[in-house]
Amino acid sequence: MSGDALVFYSAVDDGQAWQAALNAELPELDVRIDPDVGDPADIRYALVWTPPAGFFARFPNLQLVVNLGAGVDSLMRREDLLPVKFARLNDPGMEAMMASYVIFAVTRYARDIPVFERAKRRGEWDYVHPRPLYEIKVGVLGLGELGAASAKALAGMGYTVSGWSRSPKDIAGVTAFTGREGLEHVLGESEIVVCLVPLTPETHHLLGAAELALMPRGAKLVNVSRGPLVDEVALVEALRSGHLAEATLDVFETEPLPKGHPLWTLDNVLITPHVASITVPALAARDVAESIRRVRQGLPPLHEVDPRRGY
Amino acid sequence: MSGDALVFYSAVDDGQAWQAALNAELPELDVRIDPDVGDPADIRYALVWTPPAGFFARFPNLQLVVNLGAGVDSLMRREDLLPVKFARLNDPGMEAMMASYVIFAVTRYARDIPVFERAKRRGEWDYVHPRPLYEIKVGVLGLGELGAASAKALAGMGYTVSGWSRSPKDIAGVTAFTGREGLEHVLGESEIVVCLVPLTPETHHLLGAAELALMPRGAKLVNVSRGPLVDEVALVEALRSGHLAEATLDVFETEPLPKGHPLWTLDNVLITPHVASITVPALAARDVAESIRRVRQGLPPLHEVDPRRGY
Ligand SMILES: NC(=O)c1ccc[n+]([C@@H]2O[C@H](COP(=O)([O-])OP(=O)(O)OC[C@H]3O[C@@H](n4cnc5c(N)ncnc54)[C@H](OP(=O)(O)O)[C@@H]3O)[C@@H](O)[C@H]2O)c1
Ligand SMILES: NC(=O)c1ccc[n+]([C@@H]2O[C@H](COP(=O)([O-])OP(=O)(O)OC[C@H]3O[C@@H](n4cnc5c(N)ncnc54)[C@H](OP(=O)(O)O)[C@@H]3O)[C@@H](O)[C@H]2O)c1
Repeated sequence: MSGDALVFYSAVDDGQAWQAALNAELPELDVRIDPDVGDPADIRYALVWTPPAGFFARFPNLQLVVNLGAGVDSLMRREDLLPVKFARLNDPGMEAMMASYVIFAVTRYARDIPVFERAKRRGEWDYVHPRPLYEIKVGVLGLGELGAASAKALAGMGYTVSGWSRSPKDIAGVTAFTGREGLEHVLGESEIVVCLVPLTPETHHLLGAAELALMPRGAKLVNVSRGPLVDEVALVEALRSGHLAEATLDVFETEPLPKGHPLWTLDNVLITPHVASITVPALAARDVAESIRRVRQGLPPLHEVDPRRGY
Repeated sequence: MSGDALVFYSAVDDGQAWQAALNAELPELDVRIDPDVGDPADIRYALVWTPPAGFFARFPNLQLVVNLGAGVDSLMRREDLLPVKFARLNDPGMEAMMASYVIFAVTRYARDIPVFERAKRRGEWDYVHPRPLYEIKVGVLGLGELGAASAKALAGMGYTVSGWSRSPKDIAGVTAFTGREGLEHVLGESEIVVCLVPLTPETHHLLGAAELALMPRGAKLVNVSRGPLVDEVALVEALRSGHLAEATLDVFETEPLPKGHPLWTLDNVLITPHVASITVPALAARDVAESIRRVRQGLPPLHEVDPRRGY
């Protein structure tokens, strides 16, 4: 009889910490950290972050793949995956961390910090009278786990917040829109736009030259979902022309962002290396354990991904 | 018989907006914007921000001085002031704006943004694994209107927050300390220290070389109260030696910060021109009007200042 083991794979996360956190929830679970996989036939569950091509092909008994994060785009349309169940992580720690990044990036613009950063470099006191936060319109594209948490946090701070998603939403303090018309409305009225839509075939280059042109002159963009949501060539052009005043980018069409890429040289861009949010093992392991328990009982996992939608 | 007028003075705030906001609350109030003061004997109330020396000497019937902000240090120990009642402003708009600045400055450090700003200038991807916010200890010095609001907002975001004040406090999510021992404890354990103590004879140079040395190596300082709370010579030295890793400074011993001041040249300092919080007339006028009504009835104004304490 084959075993009941989990394989862990991630180039950036701490496998030992996950092993400890999972065993705190499921002491009997046999957690194997790639490449120490043992007999591949034992593997029933996988907890992975962007595994290499072909990774899954050797596990004939795989039943559940849990993505070590919220964005499952790298797991979709892979040829090495049998029709297993897919889940994503969804923990309050990840929501809080994403909200902190979004609040930082939005507030940096709302409080005119780039103006003061430039004055600092010139060694000059450059007074700008502050504006109350309710005068500042922020649009959040994507109102899922992370988008809704971020939009709520921004509204709680006093910003005027609108949002956009596929299905209609009812979120306290957030005026929610759907459809192409809704997207155009949110882009047209927002001084700061935050992108938290997952990457799917439908959302690739969601923000191209035409959509960026709909934003008011001097608007700011914060992209924390996936690089290919935004057409990077059009973005560089909009940032060069001044149509977009500023951008905060955590994600890129190619990561790491290659040396010499024009985004590195633009003074009005803040670049962070895909760190907006991470999953904290101690907080998220409970969710993974519950998904494993459910799959053992023949139930769907928590936060199951719909491969047809792609998220 | 003399009149019942208010004189408004500020070099940075919008007198017309205040006149309109005050008259929305008290339509009969005669609001005079300096220098159009008319008969000085008519003036019973003053709404002022850092008026010049001698400003008050000409108003024999002055009964109430309302400071156009939270920090009244510039009104204390003035020889041109008769023994009138003093009040400060205290509006939710000012609290929200201060909290937004503090959240921005603290989160910029918590999320390693200065590391990424430097990597950007070098054109390099420099990955730092994010830390959950609960691992980050923030100390807030001063737990008054603005300090308590900021400490609460930080705790709400997930930071581990301690605070320090003259009298003991009970604030949800904030471990509160008092006294010299309490100050030393908070400085010693905090990775990020936020200064929101008012400037009084007791608090001048509250943070000198000895106190900065108590902070852990690599700590960060955010000063949003008044410049003279911190010994600027000792601060520059601590920032140069690397004992303090970073500072965000909104206030200075001399404002505007003079050209050529060493703080302008330090790469690890973010400077803003005394903008952390302002009073929004539409939100604060209600408070000022209520203080005037109370003084007319012989009652103390709202948010009365104790000149012996100095705040
Ligand atoms: N930078 C980082 O460190 C980091 C960390 C974690 C996650 N992320 C990214 O953040 C993304 C969002 O995460 P999440 O947990 O909030 O995802 P989620 O819960 O799946 O929510 C996705 C949201 O986008 C909306 N959406 C999807 N396709 C759409 C379309 N074609 N048109 C309009 N709206 C559409 C969804 O609408 P419905 O609500 O109607 O379904 C939903 O509101 C992830 O996919 C990931 O790429 C980045
Ligand atoms: N940068 C800006 O744009 C800006 C804008 C507004 C205000 N400010 C500054 O922010 C300061 C704080 O405002 P606030 O409204 O929070 O003031 P507040 O309500 O008067 O509170 C002051 C706090 O400091 C504490 N404190 C005073 N003297 C102390 C001492 N000797 N030892 C220990 N604690 C002491 C007080 O303790 P108790 O609670 O025990 O009395 C109180 O908690 C203002 O004074 C002003 O200078 C700056």
